Amino acid sequence: MNISNADKAHVLIQALPYIQKYSGRTVVIKYGGNAMINEELKSAVMSDIALLNLVGINVVLVHGGGPEITDMLKRVNKESKFINGLRVTDKETIDIVQMVLAGKVNKSLVQHLQKCGAPAVGLCGLDGNMLMAEKLIAGEDIGYVGEIKEVNAKVIQDVINSGYVPIISTVACGYNGDVYNINADIAAAQIAAKLDACNLILMTDIRGLLRDKDDESTLISSVNVSEVPMLKREGIISGGMIPKIDCCVEAVRRGVSRAYIIDGRIPHSILIEMLTAEGIGTMFY
Amino acid sequence: MNISNADKAHVLIQALPYIQKYSGRTVVIKYGGNAMINEELKSAVMSDIALLNLVGINVVLVHGGGPEITDMLKRVNKESKFINGLRVTDKETIDIVQMVLAGKVNKSLVQHLQKCGAPAVGLCGLDGNMLMAEKLIAGEDIGYVGEIKEVNAKVIQDVINSGYVPIISTVACGYNGDVYNINADIAAAQIAAKLDACNLILMTDIRGLLRDKDDESTLISSVNVSEVPMLKREGIISGGMIPKIDCCVEAVRRGVSRAYIIDGRIPHSILIEMLTAEGIGTMFY
Amino acid sequence: MNISNADKAHVLIQALPYIQKYSGRTVVIKYGGNAMINEELKSAVMSDIALLNLVGINVVLVHGGGPEITDMLKRVNKESKFINGLRVTDKETIDIVQMVLAGKVNKSLVQHLQKCGAPAVGLCGLDGNMLMAEKLIAGEDIGYVGEIKEVNAKVIQDVINSGYVPIISTVACGYNGDVYNINADIAAAQIAAKLDACNLILMTDIRGLLRDKDDESTLISSVNVSEVPMLKREGIISGGMIPKIDCCVEAVRRGVSRAYIIDGRIPHSILIEMLTAEGIGTMFY
Amino acid sequence: MNISNADKAHVLIQALPYIQKYSGRTVVIKYGGNAMINEELKSAVMSDIALLNLVGINVVLVHGGGPEITDMLKRVNKESKFINGLRVTDKETIDIVQMVLAGKVNKSLVQHLQKCGAPAVGLCGLDGNMLMAEKLIAGEDIGYVGEIKEVNAKVIQDVINSGYVPIISTVACGYNGDVYNINADIAAAQIAAKLDACNLILMTDIRGLLRDKDDESTLISSVNVSEVPMLKREGIISGGMIPKIDCCVEAVRRGVSRAYIIDGRIPHSILIEMLTAEGIGTMFY
Amino acid sequence: MNISNADKAHVLIQALPYIQKYSGRTVVIKYGGNAMINEELKSAVMSDIALLNLVGINVVLVHGGGPEITDMLKRVNKESKFINGLRVTDKETIDIVQMVLAGKVNKSLVQHLQKCGAPAVGLCGLDGNMLMAEKLIAGEDIGYVGEIKEVNAKVIQDVINSGYVPIISTVACGYNGDVYNINADIAAAQIAAKLDACNLILMTDIRGLLRDKDDESTLISSVNVSEVPMLKREGIISGGMIPKIDCCVEAVRRGVSRAYIIDGRIPHSILIEMLTAEGIGTMFY
Amino acid sequence: MNISNADKAHVLIQALPYIQKYSGRTVVIKYGGNAMINEELKSAVMSDIALLNLVGINVVLVHGGGPEITDMLKRVNKESKFINGLRVTDKETIDIVQMVLAGKVNKSLVQHLQKCGAPAVGLCGLDGNMLMAEKLIAGEDIGYVGEIKEVNAKVIQDVINSGYVPIISTVACGYNGDVYNINADIAAAQIAAKLDACNLILMTDIRGLLRDKDDESTLISSVNVSEVPMLKREGIISGGMIPKIDCCVEAVRRGVSRAYIIDGRIPHSILIEMLTAEGIGTMFY
Repeated sequence: MNISNADKAHVLIQALPYIQKYSGRTVVIKYGGNAMINEELKSAVMSDIALLNLVGINVVLVHGGGPEITDMLKRVNKESKFINGLRVTDKETIDIVQMVLAGKVNKSLVQHLQKCGAPAVGLCGLDGNMLMAEKLIAGEDIGYVGEIKEVNAKVIQDVINSGYVPIISTVACGYNGDVYNINADIAAAQIAAKLDACNLILMTDIRGLLRDKDDESTLISSVNVSEVPMLKREGIISGGMIPKIDCCVEAVRRGVSRAYIIDGRIPHSILIEMLTAEGIGTMFY
Repeated sequence: MNISNADKAHVLIQALPYIQKYSGRTVVIKYGGNAMINEELKSAVMSDIALLNLVGINVVLVHGGGPEITDMLKRVNKESKFINGLRVTDKETIDIVQMVLAGKVNKSLVQHLQKCGAPAVGLCGLDGNMLMAEKLIAGEDIGYVGEIKEVNAKVIQDVINSGYVPIISTVACGYNGDVYNINADIAAAQIAAKLDACNLILMTDIRGLLRDKDDESTLISSVNVSEVPMLKREGIISGGMIPKIDCCVEAVRRGVSRAYIIDGRIPHSILIEMLTAEGIGTMFY
Repeated sequence: MNISNADKAHVLIQALPYIQKYSGRTVVIKYGGNAMINEELKSAVMSDIALLNLVGINVVLVHGGGPEITDMLKRVNKESKFINGLRVTDKETIDIVQMVLAGKVNKSLVQHLQKCGAPAVGLCGLDGNMLMAEKLIAGEDIGYVGEIKEVNAKVIQDVINSGYVPIISTVACGYNGDVYNINADIAAAQIAAKLDACNLILMTDIRGLLRDKDDESTLISSVNVSEVPMLKREGIISGGMIPKIDCCVEAVRRGVSRAYIIDGRIPHSILIEMLTAEGIGTMFY
Repeated sequence: MNISNADKAHVLIQALPYIQKYSGRTVVIKYGGNAMINEELKSAVMSDIALLNLVGINVVLVHGGGPEITDMLKRVNKESKFINGLRVTDKETIDIVQMVLAGKVNKSLVQHLQKCGAPAVGLCGLDGNMLMAEKLIAGEDIGYVGEIKEVNAKVIQDVINSGYVPIISTVACGYNGDVYNINADIAAAQIAAKLDACNLILMTDIRGLLRDKDDESTLISSVNVSEVPMLKREGIISGGMIPKIDCCVEAVRRGVSRAYIIDGRIPHSILIEMLTAEGIGTMFY
Repeated sequence: MNISNADKAHVLIQALPYIQKYSGRTVVIKYGGNAMINEELKSAVMSDIALLNLVGINVVLVHGGGPEITDMLKRVNKESKFINGLRVTDKETIDIVQMVLAGKVNKSLVQHLQKCGAPAVGLCGLDGNMLMAEKLIAGEDIGYVGEIKEVNAKVIQDVINSGYVPIISTVACGYNGDVYNINADIAAAQIAAKLDACNLILMTDIRGLLRDKDDESTLISSVNVSEVPMLKREGIISGGMIPKIDCCVEAVRRGVSRAYIIDGRIPHSILIEMLTAEGIGTMFY
Repeated sequence: MNISNADKAHVLIQALPYIQKYSGRTVVIKYGGNAMINEELKSAVMSDIALLNLVGINVVLVHGGGPEITDMLKRVNKESKFINGLRVTDKETIDIVQMVLAGKVNKSLVQHLQKCGAPAVGLCGLDGNMLMAEKLIAGEDIGYVGEIKEVNAKVIQDVINSGYVPIISTVACGYNGDVYNINADIAAAQIAAKLDACNLILMTDIRGLLRDKDDESTLISSVNVSEVPMLKREGIISGGMIPKIDCCVEAVRRGVSRAYIIDGRIPHSILIEMLTAEGIGTMFY
């Protein structure tokens, strides 16, 4: 990087209004996809969060971990089976899911973020009964996959108030004592709503919502949630985008000011989206 | 149980002076052995902790998990190897250790304790940089086994102050970013010292310190830490008891009022030790 | 008492849900009758309150003192005269009443409770203008007997917040500067209502409400306050029970969850009622 | 009173530096003698305290009550007996003392002060174990007369912090559970020392320390406590003045800035001493 | 002054109910006219405020400064021009106004009040965006004279909470960045309303509202704001009194309990009005 | 500015360690020279401060105002006279100085900074008796020029704690009631020391300390304060630099970690110095 001092100052100064806007507010980031696999991208995400935390923004990091789960299942000779994109989760699998998410992925993120200077605490949906769920009823029985019935945000808020970034694995507590795997996008959306977050950011492996899905130059920068049904009818929102955008709509409907789908493959996409004039993904409001 | 109301009242009233003594104080309990394997004993331990918590005693639960680690290693076809009682821990093993302790054992205890009515948060040594360690240098290289260099008790205290029972897995953070496995007895002792705990309780699978190790009726009820060297010379403290009692001595030397070795095989041994006139293990002071 | 350690642990564990239920809540106990005269019963009551206080329940003790008043009046050659169960109270009498209740009975209870380990402060209705009253107009003029017009609970709450058990004598402050004697049951009920207490407990010298007043086995365990009028018509609630039960009904109507009439002649009846599965008196809800 | 508005303003303005000096500080006043018997003087004292309280001075009122005790003893046909000015106090007498002081005098003062607008709480040495005492050993056995061994000022400070004027009867708690009568001057001095009061004021029935005890014009306005021994040798401090002045000396020695002996027979002597340029008694520093 | 001690005490005691009434409440005083020019009157005002501050009344001092502005304008050879009593204020003039009020008059008052023992902080309408204004549209263009659109009382309250008397110059901040001169009576009234003050006091150079403006004995002591329109019709409220009384009415309408017009030419008129039975001006309620 | 998103992110991320370092710390900036005259530079300074404030750094702005004072004196036909670089300050002059600094320059800065989003409060040395001074005795009598004797930082800290940037004019309060003009560099240094600031930044119109004063490429980046005497002897520190560097040395000696002389003529020099790797002035440590 060969940037003049004057330019550096300008960049910092231009971040000023965005910092003012978000200072003291809560932002929930769903972290997943390539940004979680590629080490360089991962470091960029961690730096971004540490910076946001430092300028007074309360970041809550909700993470997935599909590839690491699949990998671990393979190691214990357990095949991963999916129905409609949902992992079939028997007792043995949910045990592995909990272990990998809450024990490996989560605590490793805690360690990584702390190296960047932001103190962190790793939680899962069991801590403080944060996520209470019931078995998801959806056609075929896919086992220990749950649907959130209650979000007890007190433990998250306590961790924020004590000065840590909460990092959250989305396994949930059944009322019967079972553990359920929860879709991380949905959990992030519901946590954002319960925390009265100003922003929900879903990191994905696509550029955003494209009018022509094969042409990144047709990126739609912002969408009023009332336009979503029409965009679905027009087929612009389709396939894997549907559940993600439904999360955004749900979050906005329940009081989150803005929900973003951003491209986790671009380094520092969080920072660019939040602290510069350039939005780089699609914003729902 | 067929106890008269009058007797019930007497039991409660007799607990009064003990509750008064410990109220508002911190007690660190190292949980392990049979009490962690047998489901009935486990339920009794959880009830005991919930009750202590309720009457105003700050319980910090530090747990081990050897059998579950061994089991998981077996499932990934990894043989457990021990040198001088310490698990040889290569990179793959420490990953499994972290996963099993912080993801499975820890969060399951959180869930169990909460069912008994005590809100809990599961932490490991990585959270808030709680346990900072260096590689243990002890004869042969046994890999990622660490020695605690620093205990940052702030995160534990924060969790207590927010109203939760902290449950702690003893994996630690290396200054170089590695993760180390830590002996849970030692970790418990050091955490107790740093938290200015009044009591350290090590749950074991023996009756306590016996003058004649084959005769439980020779239980030594209390030991002044200054007598320990002589008891070692006499062979009364020997074998696996040595490191456990060294932990007790260390804790007492660093300000913990009393350290106990109690028999985890007796249901409610914690409660009996703490809230009745009968001590049931060996106390070091 | 010859109870095994296991049984002791069970008793303590069984108290757990009751402690959870009442922890942080306020319970107003009207103390009087035999439980105040018999030294052994008195000690049991004091222990019970100290224990409840210790496990986080805010106890407010409201006491009577009829026998001690009568005794003192006798010593100054003043005959006690009653009309419809109410003491005829001339100026000299109210002076004695105030002195005996607020100076002797009250402060002795403070001293006794503190010996059991619960710090206490003795108040009367004059302190902080806690009880404001007017002359009771009820047929014949019976002098300085008052009716509560206002309960200023701030002083009680302040004493609780500072960590003491408030012990209260029920003499009240007239708007004109006079002092009035107040029925302690009624005062307890009104204080409970004002403090948003969860429980009101009236200690009496009977077993509870009996369907057949000569047969203790016909104890009615719980009564919905809406059933009271019928029970009166049926003659089951009659005589001296009427004003006591009216206090219970009044308290429940004004927001106290439950009001109990318990038998003060049974040692530890408070503890048995509050911390065991056995209710031993009659509960109004 | 026929004072011009200008003069009124001057009086108020001249009080300014004194209010500034004492604002937020604690003043312990021993109230007794004529000022407690004469109704007009009593009203003046109550007004004075209410005003001091209002301008931000923490007043602690410690009272005696000898005449009322004597009167009550007479009513129960008990003769008052004194040895060296100390009341011989058998069990029956100490009961009367406690009743009269803590029940009658104390609570009546609470009521009176509150009529003047200052919220008050009546305490005795038993509340919060405020005054712990042992039997006074002084020549002949005079029964339940005690010597203070410990002042637990927490309960007094709590009452001040909650916004009330504490009014204190000086009966104390024996370590054995007995109650002892305590000299109120001594108690006031020790309470002042423990509370780090800036002023101790002893109200008496004399003009102050007089060089010639028959000539009020020889009033000594201020005395350095180091001069007291000489004044005793010269006989200027003699008789009943000795114990009072010893209290003053003791208080000053233990950190109270100034101790005053003022004439309680002059209306508003407290206010004049504290808020005007005119000292009217004798100050020890 | 030759007042007896007894009389001094009476004056102080008589202030008691007034201090009780205002303690902890906020009083906004508009300071101007002769009381600001005459050094002796000024000292009296400063003493009065220091005393009110000391007895727990939160005084907010809003000041004018016309004569000093005129004087400074003269020194820079700028003629003062008035239209309908309002100063024509060009850019150069508003600069002088800001400088004189916020730099000279304000900070000199801060210094003076502090000499009397009350810590003070000098603010103007720009600090913390306290007074937001727009150009006053009133017939002819008179330049930078503004009308308040918003009062942000946070900065005033912060200064009070930190223990200082806020002294306020009434220049305001335009939304466009201009500075406007604001009528100090109006500003005081609006600040009083926003702070929920109990009293607004306007110091003037007249005796109060007179039924016959040439006869001070016809002073009207109190006026219900509903009577104002009739008093205007009758010509009793007329001329320069109209805007001042409109301020009083406005303040009362918006929640200030009482608004006073008092005679600043009488020394200590504030104290006499507030702490004695004698009202000396006209009260609007 | 044409900077890629990636570069923007890098700039922000690179600021991270500096923000971490200064977060929650206090920085005192002496503002003066060209940076205060040139409107563009002024805007840059205000933006810089607003950004520092936003990222959690407590900025205290101390300003001068020589040119504006000279200008105002000219307008009232008063010639500015200097002896050894110090303005000869008669009574009329000090009045103008106070007015211009505390009324014009100060409050305009408040307004400007607030437009950039940082709430501010304008103070001078008179507020809260912040700066107490005596007449400077230095050869010839130069009138109301003072030397600081005491810094009462409470009012500054109060303003910071309430969430405002304090902006300070350096006129001071004499113990005799006079007002004195104070050198702003010295005042800034003393305030920094009293506030336990981590940094003192003096904005000047030179590049920093140059080894060859005619060659900016010879800038000395950092100087240990112990080297200063030698640099003076070598003539490298000379002329107008001497008093400024003495301020830096004094501040460092009294506990300020680092003192900087930076070039106010470079836009955003504060931000570049504080939040980038490039130091652009001379640092004293």
